[in-house]
Amino acid sequence: MKVVVSIGGSVLMPEPGSERVSKHAAVVEDLVAEGCRVGCVVGGGGVAREYIGAARTLGANEIELDQIGIDVTRLNSRLLIAALGEDSVTAPAHDYEEAGEALRRDGLSVMGGVAPAQTTDAVSAALAEYVDADLLVYATSVPGVYSADPNEDEEATKFEELNAGELVDVIADLDMTAGASAPVDLLAAKIIQRSGMRTIVLDGTDPDRIARAVRSGSHEGTDVIP
Amino acid sequence: MKVVVSIGGSVLMPEPGSERVSKHAAVVEDLVAEGCRVGCVVGGGGVAREYIGAARTLGANEIELDQIGIDVTRLNSRLLIAALGEDSVTAPAHDYEEAGEALRRDGLSVMGGVAPAQTTDAVSAALAEYVDADLLVYATSVPGVYSADPNEDEEATKFEELNAGELVDVIADLDMTAGASAPVDLLAAKIIQRSGMRTIVLDGTDPDRIARAVRSGSHEGTDVIP
Amino acid sequence: MKVVVSIGGSVLMPEPGSERVSKHAAVVEDLVAEGCRVGCVVGGGGVAREYIGAARTLGANEIELDQIGIDVTRLNSRLLIAALGEDSVTAPAHDYEEAGEALRRDGLSVMGGVAPAQTTDAVSAALAEYVDADLLVYATSVPGVYSADPNEDEEATKFEELNAGELVDVIADLDMTAGASAPVDLLAAKIIQRSGMRTIVLDGTDPDRIARAVRSGSHEGTDVIP
Amino acid sequence: MKVVVSIGGSVLMPEPGSERVSKHAAVVEDLVAEGCRVGCVVGGGGVAREYIGAARTLGANEIELDQIGIDVTRLNSRLLIAALGEDSVTAPAHDYEEAGEALRRDGLSVMGGVAPAQTTDAVSAALAEYVDADLLVYATSVPGVYSADPNEDEEATKFEELNAGELVDVIADLDMTAGASAPVDLLAAKIIQRSGMRTIVLDGTDPDRIARAVRSGSHEGTDVIP
Amino acid sequence: MKVVVSIGGSVLMPEPGSERVSKHAAVVEDLVAEGCRVGCVVGGGGVAREYIGAARTLGANEIELDQIGIDVTRLNSRLLIAALGEDSVTAPAHDYEEAGEALRRDGLSVMGGVAPAQTTDAVSAALAEYVDADLLVYATSVPGVYSADPNEDEEATKFEELNAGELVDVIADLDMTAGASAPVDLLAAKIIQRSGMRTIVLDGTDPDRIARAVRSGSHEGTDVIP
Amino acid sequence: MKVVVSIGGSVLMPEPGSERVSKHAAVVEDLVAEGCRVGCVVGGGGVAREYIGAARTLGANEIELDQIGIDVTRLNSRLLIAALGEDSVTAPAHDYEEAGEALRRDGLSVMGGVAPAQTTDAVSAALAEYVDADLLVYATSVPGVYSADPNEDEEATKFEELNAGELVDVIADLDMTAGASAPVDLLAAKIIQRSGMRTIVLDGTDPDRIARAVRSGSHEGTDVIP
Repeated sequence: MKVVVSIGGSVLMPEPGSERVSKHAAVVEDLVAEGCRVGCVVGGGGVAREYIGAARTLGANEIELDQIGIDVTRLNSRLLIAALGEDSVTAPAHDYEEAGEALRRDGLSVMGGVAPAQTTDAVSAALAEYVDADLLVYATSVPGVYSADPNEDEEATKFEELNAGELVDVIADLDMTAGASAPVDLLAAKIIQRSGMRTIVLDGTDPDRIARAVRSGSHEGTDVIP
Repeated sequence: MKVVVSIGGSVLMPEPGSERVSKHAAVVEDLVAEGCRVGCVVGGGGVAREYIGAARTLGANEIELDQIGIDVTRLNSRLLIAALGEDSVTAPAHDYEEAGEALRRDGLSVMGGVAPAQTTDAVSAALAEYVDADLLVYATSVPGVYSADPNEDEEATKFEELNAGELVDVIADLDMTAGASAPVDLLAAKIIQRSGMRTIVLDGTDPDRIARAVRSGSHEGTDVIP
Repeated sequence: MKVVVSIGGSVLMPEPGSERVSKHAAVVEDLVAEGCRVGCVVGGGGVAREYIGAARTLGANEIELDQIGIDVTRLNSRLLIAALGEDSVTAPAHDYEEAGEALRRDGLSVMGGVAPAQTTDAVSAALAEYVDADLLVYATSVPGVYSADPNEDEEATKFEELNAGELVDVIADLDMTAGASAPVDLLAAKIIQRSGMRTIVLDGTDPDRIARAVRSGSHEGTDVIP
Repeated sequence: MKVVVSIGGSVLMPEPGSERVSKHAAVVEDLVAEGCRVGCVVGGGGVAREYIGAARTLGANEIELDQIGIDVTRLNSRLLIAALGEDSVTAPAHDYEEAGEALRRDGLSVMGGVAPAQTTDAVSAALAEYVDADLLVYATSVPGVYSADPNEDEEATKFEELNAGELVDVIADLDMTAGASAPVDLLAAKIIQRSGMRTIVLDGTDPDRIARAVRSGSHEGTDVIP
Repeated sequence: MKVVVSIGGSVLMPEPGSERVSKHAAVVEDLVAEGCRVGCVVGGGGVAREYIGAARTLGANEIELDQIGIDVTRLNSRLLIAALGEDSVTAPAHDYEEAGEALRRDGLSVMGGVAPAQTTDAVSAALAEYVDADLLVYATSVPGVYSADPNEDEEATKFEELNAGELVDVIADLDMTAGASAPVDLLAAKIIQRSGMRTIVLDGTDPDRIARAVRSGSHEGTDVIP
Repeated sequence: MKVVVSIGGSVLMPEPGSERVSKHAAVVEDLVAEGCRVGCVVGGGGVAREYIGAARTLGANEIELDQIGIDVTRLNSRLLIAALGEDSVTAPAHDYEEAGEALRRDGLSVMGGVAPAQTTDAVSAALAEYVDADLLVYATSVPGVYSADPNEDEEATKFEELNAGELVDVIADLDMTAGASAPVDLLAAKIIQRSGMRTIVLDGTDPDRIARAVRSGSHEGTDVIP
């Protein structure tokens, strides 16, 4: 089985520290030991937000902010790599080809962002598409895809299951709502749609949920059916 | 004045040959000679479509197809570079930073695609945002932005002017319509929206229209007002 | 057994399409499955000629034309890669060391041109020399090495066998004849001569001929004996 | 005049934010506007310490920690670059040659770390040596070089002036004292010694002190006389 | 067992020729065949000294001299690689990550210098630290670590054993003595100290001594005990 | 005026030392100061021969030997760079595009070899073709092009002038003669022929002869007339 796991920066490191990273690494290693090929894509999280906030104040434009964000995702990737066993991954992959090659040779790859104007959400979907993954898991800080932003709208309900076209619609709607944020961005949703990949969006704060979803397909998040 | 010109592949080379390329190069050189800084982004056109069609039949996935498309955009960029004066551009830039540096040093840069899951439409908008361009011109094979795909719908009408939010809506709608194609893709439209950049979409088959739009702002395409 | 196969661009793709590529890929995969290590070098063919023709008209010099040609050979290499099984080759190698490393690790590598002033004919011979190949096969669009250009001279006869020194002489003579073209260029012939490598020049339009030559040494082309 | 300024990470950003960065950028730009060539080397500071602490807990070895530290210095460099005027520096230099080239072309370069087992203290001295700088300024969070660590030893006295050999001795002694930290590391001190470069170590929390030291040589830190 | 062997340039090639290189390669291959993972770091030796001498006369500064020295170490590395079996190492690694990756995949890597202001002594220690080597062997042209430079001081005595702190002290003292040269430089000694790696300094002119030290720990040089 | 000067390795450094390098650098700088754009290509000379001899004995194949030769040409290039004024060239260019860019920006570039199976003779001709040089000068250790190898044949006579086709013939003939060596190789001669570039082959042991040939066209070597 080939799986791409997108680990949000704030899921991996809610605050500076190593405990959560260590647990995520253990889950990844268990999956690899069971014969699963795992491509990890790590997000920027709170550190990225702080640097981007400072850079924006200093006059950086959006593309420069994206560059800074990419640097932070690679830094976070190095933490995950440090937590993995010593003979597994050397350094974050810079692009899809490097990641695909590592996955092919070692059954494991870790990467952050790739290019400006492309979030790690989209990178995850693109990597999954590139390596023809059987499953794409978004380990986010929310429990799944909602009809509205649950932080903004009390009546938001979580989807247990929706198809890729519906996912695109929901995300597009959230995009239009001021202040609302989606667990997966629109470009990612569109890649999921075109590739027809099975996708799960779940609360990744407990990494065991990722393992369970990969192993048995059972989880409490949202299933995106091709 | 700083301008980014997105030249569609089929606009630059409707068929194999050099005449159209030569005219586009002349326009770019004139603008540079007048003190304008010009960032060119070249698309893939018919050659890209042929290679992508063959590769899809051979089993390539979308990201691999994007890689092939990027290679073709760089090849097309080399043609434009060949047509430019010998002391201007050495080779296509690989990313925004290289392109920005060339624009800063020489007042002129040429690039194709940057990364998979990102069209040259989006690259153009991102480059314009990165270099804080005063104007972004899409030289396409259609005369502007329409309410629907003019090839599919007789009642499609061309917008003379719309704001960036409206552009996003129109493109998003076209995206939903089977078979319809938009002159600019959704990611590009969203970058235009967030950056608040003045943008013109025009028929670039006659390159002089690009020159006129840059010099005087007058054109027969569609104006996207920030 | 280690073999380098030079696949002319017009042999791989006589016209835009995927069928011929598919057959070549199948032959390469069969050989690898049988335990053969295969280094493929792909030429530029018709697409290269079209781009080079256009660029020459636009004023590009020979080295710039070579750069464009190299880009096309890499593009063609991607098509062959697309047709190979998904876990074999990631991307075209950029130089002999990358290709040699891929051959060592995976038993298979694909590359196009390397540097200006060096055709893929010469790259093939140099790669064969670099990896100490047992056999070098030129899959060309003519059936072998002739005493003169068969398209120009009715009395041209095909050599069944010649030694490397004779090959150099024949090619050098053809080089001197206006309008004549040789199936292998002079630099390649000299590398073959110095390395003492067994070389076969054959009509590669039917890829099975390559397979047969590699497996049994039997073919209807020209044998170059060290 | 050519000057290399080493800006400690915690000097540039005592806490997440942009104000201090902005002031440092203003000083650098003023100096460049006055005709000074300025090479900036940015340290890792608090963010580096946090990541390194986490990575150490996760089992990273010292070289891996250095890699992480280098990544943070480049991230911090991007903040300084964001604060500089838009047409000055594109991205952090990766090595001495890139930095030297930027200094030669634009009169300004920004870089972080270069290689493991080499602090940005040493990078600063090496860059100064490489570009034959007239002055090397260490903008640190302590007011100069002390006879002992002022945080550990009440009787520590600040040197107003010492020669390079004495600097090496003082740093070597501090190195031997458990818990003590020196404002400049030993490798840096030895490079300063061999190159015979004038060096100033000063409290850089107020960037104007850097400007004054560069312009007039007057400061309240420590002068290292060749 | 994982071992890093630092082979001094004048140990590998006391004069232009191939015999000594051949013997060193044979020892390395024997160790690898016995299941040992071997990281080789090759120094510059006499050729480096000649080029550096000439460049210094021509006005190069120390960092430029270091660049030249690094180039020579890579050239020497290629000789060692040429002497190794054909399917082992393709080219010298450029940095610790490349070397570590080669060691992980093939059990063997060869590299020269990495960055200016860092000798191959230090590179060897850093590589050993990076790959968590069990043993670091310095194959030098002197028989071990002495209390003083044996070429300068008749009473210099060789240490059979010393701990890492003592090694640092001895090297620091030698550093202070005009004209004296140490078998390992100070930065290397400090890396050895911090990493707590077992280290042997021995006369490498007979490569069999390296093999014996690795296999049985027995040698006539100096043991550095963590 | 744009000129490419090919400086043989044994011309630049007949033996280890700096005097000859210094004189060549002075000539290059004078030419640049007079407004001439100068592209230098440096050969491998005696050091290359020694390393290649050793590597051949160790079992390296011709392509590996070429790699080693290229490394030496870059090393020699660094010596020439060290002798040039400090603000001129940072490092040897790796390919034609880098060299062309340096020539365009700074009016001066230095490079060694580019790719295996391509001597610096050929690189010089290709660079001259790429930058559309007005003149190509081969500064060799023989006084010009001879009808035979003057070291082998007493009756060899020097050509004062010959056309490019004749040059190709002479070189091709020399190639066929066992033991004979030509001042310029066949690939170079063919590039000279196709590009129609004025070329001078002269004894470069006294660099002033290069300067005189560039300034006035007068020299005692061989003129190759397009």
